[in-house]
Amino acid sequence: MSSVSDAARAREDIDALMHRLGRAAVTASRALALASTAQKNVALEAAAEVLRERHTAILQANGLDMQDAQAKHLSAALLDRLRLDERRIEAMSSSLIEIAALADPVGTVAAEWDRPNGLRIQRVRVPLGVIGIIFESRPNVTADAGALCLKSGNAAILRCGSESRHSSRVIHECLCAGLGKAGLPLECIQLVPTVDRAAVGLMLSGMSEFLDVLVPRGGKSLVARVRAEARVPVIGHLEGNCHVYVDRDADLQMARAIVLNAKLRRTGVCGAAETLLIDRACVATHLAPLVHALLDAGCEVRGDATAQAVDTKVRPASEDDWYREYLDAIIAVRVVEGVDGAIAHIERYGSEHTESIVTQNPATAERFLAGIDSAIVLHNASTQFADGAEFGMGAEIGISTDRLHARGPVGVEQLTTYKYVVRGSGQVRP
Amino acid sequence: MSSVSDAARAREDIDALMHRLGRAAVTASRALALASTAQKNVALEAAAEVLRERHTAILQANGLDMQDAQAKHLSAALLDRLRLDERRIEAMSSSLIEIAALADPVGTVAAEWDRPNGLRIQRVRVPLGVIGIIFESRPNVTADAGALCLKSGNAAILRCGSESRHSSRVIHECLCAGLGKAGLPLECIQLVPTVDRAAVGLMLSGMSEFLDVLVPRGGKSLVARVRAEARVPVIGHLEGNCHVYVDRDADLQMARAIVLNAKLRRTGVCGAAETLLIDRACVATHLAPLVHALLDAGCEVRGDATAQAVDTKVRPASEDDWYREYLDAIIAVRVVEGVDGAIAHIERYGSEHTESIVTQNPATAERFLAGIDSAIVLHNASTQFADGAEFGMGAEIGISTDRLHARGPVGVEQLTTYKYVVRGSGQVRP
Repeated sequence: MSSVSDAARAREDIDALMHRLGRAAVTASRALALASTAQKNVALEAAAEVLRERHTAILQANGLDMQDAQAKHLSAALLDRLRLDERRIEAMSSSLIEIAALADPVGTVAAEWDRPNGLRIQRVRVPLGVIGIIFESRPNVTADAGALCLKSGNAAILRCGSESRHSSRVIHECLCAGLGKAGLPLECIQLVPTVDRAAVGLMLSGMSEFLDVLVPRGGKSLVARVRAEARVPVIGHLEGNCHVYVDRDADLQMARAIVLNAKLRRTGVCGAAETLLIDRACVATHLAPLVHALLDAGCEVRGDATAQAVDTKVRPASEDDWYREYLDAIIAVRVVEGVDGAIAHIERYGSEHTESIVTQNPATAERFLAGIDSAIVLHNASTQFADGAEFGMGAEIGISTDRLHARGPVGVEQLTTYKYVVRGSGQVRP
Repeated sequence: MSSVSDAARAREDIDALMHRLGRAAVTASRALALASTAQKNVALEAAAEVLRERHTAILQANGLDMQDAQAKHLSAALLDRLRLDERRIEAMSSSLIEIAALADPVGTVAAEWDRPNGLRIQRVRVPLGVIGIIFESRPNVTADAGALCLKSGNAAILRCGSESRHSSRVIHECLCAGLGKAGLPLECIQLVPTVDRAAVGLMLSGMSEFLDVLVPRGGKSLVARVRAEARVPVIGHLEGNCHVYVDRDADLQMARAIVLNAKLRRTGVCGAAETLLIDRACVATHLAPLVHALLDAGCEVRGDATAQAVDTKVRPASEDDWYREYLDAIIAVRVVEGVDGAIAHIERYGSEHTESIVTQNPATAERFLAGIDSAIVLHNASTQFADGAEFGMGAEIGISTDRLHARGPVGVEQLTTYKYVVRGSGQVRP
């Protein structure tokens, strides 16, 4: 009995806690929506400075997180994502300065026009309101996500993974110091002060009156849970099963450079290529050099029958391989019937993230760019350009594979919505 | 036993039916996304002509719907929404011609820029994909919604209410005739061929692999069900609890015209004003004339203590009245402390739809326009301008009170998303 009522009480406490956070965020968001660009930039620049000043405290906190993670035998990849050092703290601080330097989207007039009756209509960018961000091990997300929300005039409720809780807490304190210096409410950026998993459940489905949008930043299972349970709109990305299609009119040297870069520059990013499609018409000239280049670079190759014939090191690809987001030095290789074959393959197996065609034929390129319905389609360029900074949009909170609201890199502009401001002189509707 | 298995079989049949519709819509949407503007316009114009030609068949079908509705003793308001006559058929036909005349949003370049590395980036409008529309009694929605989806390059799955099933079926046949004439797949616009309510449940939560977005068009209970159950993104409006605030610096004559028009021009539209807020500083001069104007026009007035003192016909307003969307000749009247009092009231009770301030003071107007976070904010104009056609956007599928993707009137542009088209010359990422 007693443990049941203890659990019930704990549940009630966390309900109350999260609702308090939600209410405070709504209040703060109203002040923040009207804050000047200068005030927001002061907060960001001051936070950047405090992050640098407090590097020792941040490293100490990160040391605690690393100890716990090692004790739990977390994977090397996860430990690397969690680890902070002087260079990474400096990068976090610089990122805040860069976000301060971005143009403020709030209040900009996206369109304006006059009506015959004299009404003047403006479509004006306004913040989304309160953004909930659920992330996993990387502690720098605390700074990045908090700063992007602040710059775009949104109050943020950040929920870090339990692995990064000590690091995230100290980083959050630095953000609060910046808000304080700028005279903005500290509730503009709140960090959920508990790692109880019930908090995530509440953000997904128990706080819709406070949260305007949720942004999941993490692995497949987090994103899947958010999509299944969320009762508020979500901006997030699912998989990046990205393709490079090498056409019969591709320059082989360019194709080799693009394929190697798209697959291997970094294998763990969502813009990394996972499948190479090759036009049957250039199998004789292009297939073997590309497969050998990949194998020589240490990439595992899984191919269809034609690709397997190139080298005994090529393993057979199964139907499942065409769907896979390896996020590793593995690539699937398939021969297709020209650009239409490539489009059909991508339509069937792709995740609408990022795809590239390599060809010197402009008509074939245009057919691919129009026919592929992904967030990003490229001609003669690496899929690894799928990135807000590379697009010139500054930092981003993720790459959206949703179709509504925002597709591709989600930067400060994509964290706003709009309202219509209509100025009249007494007009009534006939 | 047998009835259980019959029910199970029926359920299976409807599952299979809806999935067949979904798959066909996805296939059609791919052809439609690449269709030319001219081809879509031919379909719309041909459908408009067939609607006119088949007016007798439409009226006969509508007669069946009206008979059923009368037998079920549906309300006079519902019967009116359901009823078609020559004039309404003509309006439906003209509406298709108007939609054909709208600019085609698909393929337009919303933004483009160059990167220092030579990449050229374009943000290009593309259709959303497959749109599910669930509507109630008004049969003209079949034509309007189908046409708006077609123009914006989206395949539509329309689910009409059982009341309008005969009318909707004949109208849908006319749309199909237009598609046929243009050489477009008939599956671009599909009407769910059953009024079984299980079809609605499937559209909400069993067809997410086929549907990109759902648009509910109907009363509060439909919208609430869609919001509670939908597993696909929804574009829809909730309530329009719209406000007019009459400021101390309002011209009384202008205020009277705007208040009467905002409340009474049509009381059943979502842009109708439901609450009148009056600045305490002009109670002596403005309150009585406005209340009497409303009473004289046949409007019921529910007021706070000050408003009640104006006339014995003013009934007391309860707390609940400030939240109400009457959609009737009833208005709530409250005295507030200047523009900040108006903003606070609207923030608390409003539905973020449409609000108007009447004032000759530009600074006060700007404070209201910036401080109110509704889809549409107006200065010196009637809230009844909340309408796509009045905004110059052409026909609309509704007024969104969502914050993401689309706010305010949802026209053809709002039924699109975008993708990034990136053109390079062999760029790889360093």
